[in-house]
Amino acid sequence: MYKENYPSKLLEEAVDAINMLPGVGRRSALRLALHLLRQPQENVHHFTAAINSLRDEVKYCRVCRMISDDEICSICSDNSRDRNTICVVESVRDVMSIENTGQYHGLYHVLGGIISPINGIGPSDLTIRELVARVAELCGKEDGYGNAADLADGETGDGAMNGNAGAEVILALSGDVEGETTSFYIYRQISGFGIKVSSLARGLGFGDDLEYADELTLGRSIVNRQAFRP
Amino acid sequence: MYKENYPSKLLEEAVDAINMLPGVGRRSALRLALHLLRQPQENVHHFTAAINSLRDEVKYCRVCRMISDDEICSICSDNSRDRNTICVVESVRDVMSIENTGQYHGLYHVLGGIISPINGIGPSDLTIRELVARVAELCGKEDGYGNAADLADGETGDGAMNGNAGAEVILALSGDVEGETTSFYIYRQISGFGIKVSSLARGLGFGDDLEYADELTLGRSIVNRQAFRP
Repeated sequence: MYKENYPSKLLEEAVDAINMLPGVGRRSALRLALHLLRQPQENVHHFTAAINSLRDEVKYCRVCRMISDDEICSICSDNSRDRNTICVVESVRDVMSIENTGQYHGLYHVLGGIISPINGIGPSDLTIRELVARVAELCGKEDGYGNAADLADGETGDGAMNGNAGAEVILALSGDVEGETTSFYIYRQISGFGIKVSSLARGLGFGDDLEYADELTLGRSIVNRQAFRP
Repeated sequence: MYKENYPSKLLEEAVDAINMLPGVGRRSALRLALHLLRQPQENVHHFTAAINSLRDEVKYCRVCRMISDDEICSICSDNSRDRNTICVVESVRDVMSIENTGQYHGLYHVLGGIISPINGIGPSDLTIRELVARVAELCGKEDGYGNAADLADGETGDGAMNGNAGAEVILALSGDVEGETTSFYIYRQISGFGIKVSSLARGLGFGDDLEYADELTLGRSIVNRQAFRP
């Protein structure tokens, strides 16, 4: 461990601050602080101003909760996208990752986290309620919270027959216990609307060698085997 | 390479700014930007304020050019230190590293860089002139730039006899070509003052295995072998 003996209080405070970033230890923080010290003053001010602006001025899309410069994000306001499909993800980062694949053309819903009792995050800390409202609207039903959607008759969402036939919710959450829990929780909330609910395919990665696959993944890959498409 | 498709201009600008830090790629910059976005606003403001304060308010010691909160740094103003020895280093970081060894009790001189024609850094970009003036003063001579030191007689620094017998300059620069060049340049500037000039011991590291040492280091270790002290 690096002994802490700073020649300047200002340097120590900057190192303390930079050290708060994830994955940046005290040695790296010192290196970064000394680097910033060597830069022209206007570059450092530009650096800090960009971070402050991001934190102070960023907006979240009113529909999907994605980071956005406007009230409605560029994805939600893009009429060429499939408005019948909602892909539920944990974070902004996940939206960017899926967008980068170029394989998805529907809408998103950013939960802003994942149900995690250990970290004190419950369903009410996430945007699940907003998701249920969106699904209700998509299916032309009333959601469980009493918000009226443009419903045709007085039914509450229990019959699959009234669902929007093409509508689909994709639960694109991580495959760990917390992700599965969150997926299951959401599934229970929306299954009554008669909407198709899917989750990401799990199996061996493309190009993966059987020899190095873990047993759980390999086992699931066999159980969920797909028709061979040459 | 990560495709660049940012959902927000603010996010993109913050990522661009963070990406300027050494060793931080665009993926890491995005991760850090999204982390900062999740933090309470006051934490982010504290983070950027600490960096701005460091850059705007930090002082450099008038004597040794070390980072300092005062005009004269805590090392230069510490009367218990050996004022006859000056250790010449490239950067602030090097002072901290040597201080952390606890093995050195003299003063320092921070060059602020190293002579590097490729990077356009010449002797005049460093604090070599200030170093020569300090050495001249230490030896009671006039420096080559015509600054009077408290000289006894009218001699210019050519005789070793007039030097301060206990005075020493340690050239603690890196062992690469640029470091050696800088050491040699400084040596030529100060050798006339009749001061003892030394450099760091080079050889195998403590605990190093002969098998894995590079040939140059091993060769020098043999040539510069030391008396065995059991």
